[in-house]
Amino acid sequence: MTTLSTRPYKGTRDYYPEEKRLQNYIFSVWAQAARQFGYEEYGAPLLEPLDIYTAKSGQELASEQTYVFDDRGGRTVAVRPEMTPSVSRMVAARRQELAMPARLYSIANFMRYERPQRGREREFWQMNVDLFGVSSIEADAEIIELAYTSMKLFGAKDDMFTIRVNDRELINAIMFRYLGCDAVQAELMIKLLDRKHKISTEAFRDQAVDIFGPEQAKEGLPRLASLLGVYKVTELPLEIQQHPAAERLQQLMDKLAQAGVRNVLFDASLMRGLDYYTGTVFEVFDTHPDNNRALFGGGRYDGLVSLFGVEPLPTVGMGLGATTMQNFLEVHKLVPQDISTTDVYLVVIGESALRGAKRLARELRAEGVRVEVDITGRKLDKQLRSALKKHIPYLVFVGEAELQSGHYKIKNTATAQEQVADIARMVSIVLDRRSRRDELDDIIASLT
Amino acid sequence: MTTLSTRPYKGTRDYYPEEKRLQNYIFSVWAQAARQFGYEEYGAPLLEPLDIYTAKSGQELASEQTYVFDDRGGRTVAVRPEMTPSVSRMVAARRQELAMPARLYSIANFMRYERPQRGREREFWQMNVDLFGVSSIEADAEIIELAYTSMKLFGAKDDMFTIRVNDRELINAIMFRYLGCDAVQAELMIKLLDRKHKISTEAFRDQAVDIFGPEQAKEGLPRLASLLGVYKVTELPLEIQQHPAAERLQQLMDKLAQAGVRNVLFDASLMRGLDYYTGTVFEVFDTHPDNNRALFGGGRYDGLVSLFGVEPLPTVGMGLGATTMQNFLEVHKLVPQDISTTDVYLVVIGESALRGAKRLARELRAEGVRVEVDITGRKLDKQLRSALKKHIPYLVFVGEAELQSGHYKIKNTATAQEQVADIARMVSIVLDRRSRRDELDDIIASLT
Repeated sequence: MTTLSTRPYKGTRDYYPEEKRLQNYIFSVWAQAARQFGYEEYGAPLLEPLDIYTAKSGQELASEQTYVFDDRGGRTVAVRPEMTPSVSRMVAARRQELAMPARLYSIANFMRYERPQRGREREFWQMNVDLFGVSSIEADAEIIELAYTSMKLFGAKDDMFTIRVNDRELINAIMFRYLGCDAVQAELMIKLLDRKHKISTEAFRDQAVDIFGPEQAKEGLPRLASLLGVYKVTELPLEIQQHPAAERLQQLMDKLAQAGVRNVLFDASLMRGLDYYTGTVFEVFDTHPDNNRALFGGGRYDGLVSLFGVEPLPTVGMGLGATTMQNFLEVHKLVPQDISTTDVYLVVIGESALRGAKRLARELRAEGVRVEVDITGRKLDKQLRSALKKHIPYLVFVGEAELQSGHYKIKNTATAQEQVADIARMVSIVLDRRSRRDELDDIIASLT
Repeated sequence: MTTLSTRPYKGTRDYYPEEKRLQNYIFSVWAQAARQFGYEEYGAPLLEPLDIYTAKSGQELASEQTYVFDDRGGRTVAVRPEMTPSVSRMVAARRQELAMPARLYSIANFMRYERPQRGREREFWQMNVDLFGVSSIEADAEIIELAYTSMKLFGAKDDMFTIRVNDRELINAIMFRYLGCDAVQAELMIKLLDRKHKISTEAFRDQAVDIFGPEQAKEGLPRLASLLGVYKVTELPLEIQQHPAAERLQQLMDKLAQAGVRNVLFDASLMRGLDYYTGTVFEVFDTHPDNNRALFGGGRYDGLVSLFGVEPLPTVGMGLGATTMQNFLEVHKLVPQDISTTDVYLVVIGESALRGAKRLARELRAEGVRVEVDITGRKLDKQLRSALKKHIPYLVFVGEAELQSGHYKIKNTATAQEQVADIARMVSIVLDRRSRRDELDDIIASLT
């Protein structure tokens, strides 16, 4: 018999309990933010026909990054690389029945062929949040306020991140009217701006010259330069400032300021994989020097449901990745202390006490306490070591004498404090800690 | 442009909010049961190298039912069809570091090629629960008690389901010693017994004769008959009753009775896909005439981690399917009333009230209330219809006058009762309902 490898498939991760708890913490904060704004959870299939991705997603995503194969019935299917086509399909399928506006979120896993790098994995988890059916800028403001709220619920302060906004129509106006590009040049220029933080200044300049051509570059380069580093709509060249999309962006920023969201910047050079987007685009950036990158983003993509043969529907959405969020929490020291979901470990003193210990466990469980019983019959030090390794907050010692008296030694593993308590007292000690912990999380979130 | 289909991929489901809430209810009850017993959640990759399935899973599962393909690096990978090989791999990878016994659970999606039928889908969701590192029958008893507890938490009564137990070693003794089978005959006989509820009595008899051959059948058939319908260990033929595995099964049933689990039957004809199992096997059966089938099951499968080159580890586990659980809840009328996760829908009276309505929403959200604001500017009746369609429990009406007075009409959509309330009062009304709802669920669960 050959021995199998214990390593997970390339680019995927095993989540042991400690790592899963951190992932669950991220998921629960996300869900809390989405639900606060009235978004309801949905679920979509893991596999989809490939053509829902080729129809509208970026070409790179559909052709190079997607896990594609033919099923046994000869259908070409993809492991979903993103959620937007699926949720658009679902909304299209119930275009008439669904209550509009539809506010929807999901937390799900996806797969893409990626070269391993920080924050990038082949299997990754995202929350997707979408608001279908509102064409006004109110929708864009709501989604960005939700993004901001999720950051605050994680305990982030305003100076830890910025929200950068731009608009697809404004980008078009800049490309065609201000820079004088044609369609081919515009596409290349957008890609170049997308890469601007990843290449040297010289390379950026050289490539811009290549795109403009030597003649056009004389006028084009200074105009391009005038756009980079513009962080207010009012700093834009006047001819662009008067574009309706610029006015709309200013409205958006005003509405966000009214909602207390003030770390918002206009960024004329913010592009995104633009194949979807038709209006607002935005990204949340980490300001920490060790993690200075986009955390997540989104925008308006009116019309995607129409690929499925129904009337277009104005839509604003965003996708938040769990691994980038985890990196953010780590560099800003916002990762909560790791404690097991189990409340109590019953240390069983002598084989004869096991039956009574199991009865005690049932009584505690009936009161909502989460109890692990050591059923191994091993020595006490081994039982203790196991409980401590698992980060379980309380030990309770159960022997014949304790079972007869109904009083047990309960030990807090963090403080090493011990006391003797009956069942009722143990229940209140344990559940108090759990609710204090929840409350503490709320207080931390509200202070920041 | 061709129009894409809105249908999900064959054998998969879309979960709209109402369906997702029911699925989430099932997940949360499962997690509650697992955590009560001190099990901690883990996560595993969606894709695994195919060979971890072919090494030990049933041949049918690995070869016919698995979604297999070659990735771009030429690796043959499978979309996971089950969790046991993954969790065994994970435990093997940290054989030394993990605190033992390891109590682990996961809730995840899987894919198999299946012919569509009730309770069977190509993409399905399961909770997997495993206890690693305990060789005594205490481990088997704990897993079955956990299975029983999960049923009770759903509100199931003892007469709604039975738990059937058997033992792999006992099956072997019956096949070889009592029925006189050789290895080939035993394998065929196990498969036949597995199918016994799916074929006619005549077909069962004919196939049994085929397996025995005409000579052996004379003695074999009456012996086989004496086993079917045996539901107590003490009803077994004496020569089998004295087998150590029979004694162990009796111990198991005694321990379960001590834990208050009394709807347990020994079933000598209970087989399962046996490739894993080395000891106890069990299944939870629905007793409802419209859904008389196995809901889920598990057993002991000592030694699977050793496929990954480490010391064998005694293990007991089970897998619970969400769709079969949903069918159970439906036929027994245990599905909870569907209510949105959103608490309040803010109906906005007049465009000028929107800014104030959004401020009110922020104030309510800061108190933990989940609020959807109607930002559309449409007529009131359309706003109301949308809120009702979404099953949102409260409407709050916000106009200029309400914003000035700080008093709002709040309407319970289930009872149609209205009252006028300030923010503090609205918060208490809404959060009271949510906690009463949680409490009610607890009471229902404790009564049954």
